[in-house]
Amino acid sequence: MIDRLIEKIRMTKNPSVIGLDPDLTKIPLCYRQKSNVSLKDTADVIINFNCDIIDTVAPYVPAVKLQMAFYEAYGSYGVRAFEETVAYAKTKGLIVIEDAKRNDIGNTARAYANGHLGKMPLLDGTPSSVFDVDFLTVTPFLGSESIRPFVETCNVFHKGIFVLVKTSNPSAGEIQDQVTAEGYTVSEMLAHQLEELAKLSVGKYGYSSIGAVVGATYPKDAVKLRRVMKHCCFLVPGFGAQGGSADDVMPCFDEKGLGAIVNSSRGILYTHMTDDERNTITKDEYLIRVKKQTVEMQQQLYHALSADKKSMCY
Amino acid sequence: MIDRLIEKIRMTKNPSVIGLDPDLTKIPLCYRQKSNVSLKDTADVIINFNCDIIDTVAPYVPAVKLQMAFYEAYGSYGVRAFEETVAYAKTKGLIVIEDAKRNDIGNTARAYANGHLGKMPLLDGTPSSVFDVDFLTVTPFLGSESIRPFVETCNVFHKGIFVLVKTSNPSAGEIQDQVTAEGYTVSEMLAHQLEELAKLSVGKYGYSSIGAVVGATYPKDAVKLRRVMKHCCFLVPGFGAQGGSADDVMPCFDEKGLGAIVNSSRGILYTHMTDDERNTITKDEYLIRVKKQTVEMQQQLYHALSADKKSMCY
Repeated sequence: MIDRLIEKIRMTKNPSVIGLDPDLTKIPLCYRQKSNVSLKDTADVIINFNCDIIDTVAPYVPAVKLQMAFYEAYGSYGVRAFEETVAYAKTKGLIVIEDAKRNDIGNTARAYANGHLGKMPLLDGTPSSVFDVDFLTVTPFLGSESIRPFVETCNVFHKGIFVLVKTSNPSAGEIQDQVTAEGYTVSEMLAHQLEELAKLSVGKYGYSSIGAVVGATYPKDAVKLRRVMKHCCFLVPGFGAQGGSADDVMPCFDEKGLGAIVNSSRGILYTHMTDDERNTITKDEYLIRVKKQTVEMQQQLYHALSADKKSMCY
Repeated sequence: MIDRLIEKIRMTKNPSVIGLDPDLTKIPLCYRQKSNVSLKDTADVIINFNCDIIDTVAPYVPAVKLQMAFYEAYGSYGVRAFEETVAYAKTKGLIVIEDAKRNDIGNTARAYANGHLGKMPLLDGTPSSVFDVDFLTVTPFLGSESIRPFVETCNVFHKGIFVLVKTSNPSAGEIQDQVTAEGYTVSEMLAHQLEELAKLSVGKYGYSSIGAVVGATYPKDAVKLRRVMKHCCFLVPGFGAQGGSADDVMPCFDEKGLGAIVNSSRGILYTHMTDDERNTITKDEYLIRVKKQTVEMQQQLYHALSADKKSMCY
């Protein structure tokens, strides 16, 4: 799966991913006008909104990232909207990253892995794909046992994971920066564990489908983590709305400009509108802005990579 | 919510919770015989199975714990089965604990909190309950920022959370046992953070709706953690199938026999059958065994509490 992601990055000359985080309080009013207001109608609005965003950004980006929280918060209807969005994004050739930060052990972790990335047995044992996303984010708080079932599923079904190593938020360090007896931070310890796993399945561009989440807001940590996780692609949150700049994310990339994919959600979908504009903007006007933000982000990253002499392989 | 849980524990004289973890490879064949094998049929079997279990255990236990992984692994149909199970358990007066180990920050964490415990806005802004469970498990890897939105939602909607502090699995310690600069383990640091939050909202029995997950398999840690988290109720996994005994979980209880609720899933639902029995047992025979296991667990805990002179308030 990592090879396909890298090929899409090179094809679009764009190491970025658009977050599809449908927040009803921020989606333009023109999408929210419906006669009914049931959970089902809400899910229909989310599907409609997402399909328009996907149509708009598909020519410019390699991937979309769906934040599961915004879907499952609407229950089974919301999860249906998630499923339909994933299916639609795939018809447009996009790689689908699911940001769900799942975490558990044993057969519970296997259920998560098989439901999201692999196949689940039906009543007669027939294996069936369910969400069938390409990549899933995983939280490592329960230790290496909680990672292994996901890695095994990735190997069987040619999928990928991004394990949280250093997140972009201010309180990330409370646990992640604790220094272990070996003198590493928890993040660095995780980086070493992941690199060991990643080395076992390296694709044709030098990267594994076992990747890491490394926030844009801690560039000094990114330098160290990039050095340890030579075979892990980084999913980089925190760009834009959270304060990370194109320069801040450069340490996440290797000297060829590969090895990282930078996410923006709010910056593309919401922050370019005032509250007044949110209530008056038409779909056409809105989608023009979404396209403009998408292309600007691509250009910011591409220019920063070029300035850093990192884009020779694009 | 914690007061209701404690009242139910006293009423049933049973500080245990039955895990509803529908694993199709382990559910007796008599429940799995259907002419069709779609995802929808699979979800229907799960609902039917769960309702039978709920009818069987409701007179004996205060609460059920649903492991979300086993539901969402079947996509939106599985989540519908989760919703219907929650609703049915509530009609039987059971407290519903959702084990989903959700974790995120900011508006994403709020979406999780509102979808699972609170209310989500519909298209016109009307707030609507979605999952409406009573308690949710939360993973603290992203720091205190990732806990706060859940606490706020609990306060508004009178719900509760159990934050993972020390899990029951062998590799739990890789992160959770790391010693911080202050000389505490990560688990102890989390315990102090949670106790500070818990103290702000203590119910009439001395406990807060902000609780902790503390595994049965590390009784020495439980002693220390009980001492720090005086106002946090413990949700205790790892009993039975994972190796924890009734004696092992005693340190999780206070001197009145309160402050902990012990979970068993596989021990109640699956491990009392051989593979052959799984294929031949009738529903009636199966449910008799489930009842027997449930009552035995209650008795084991009650006897251990009595021996430990901890059950005077039951």
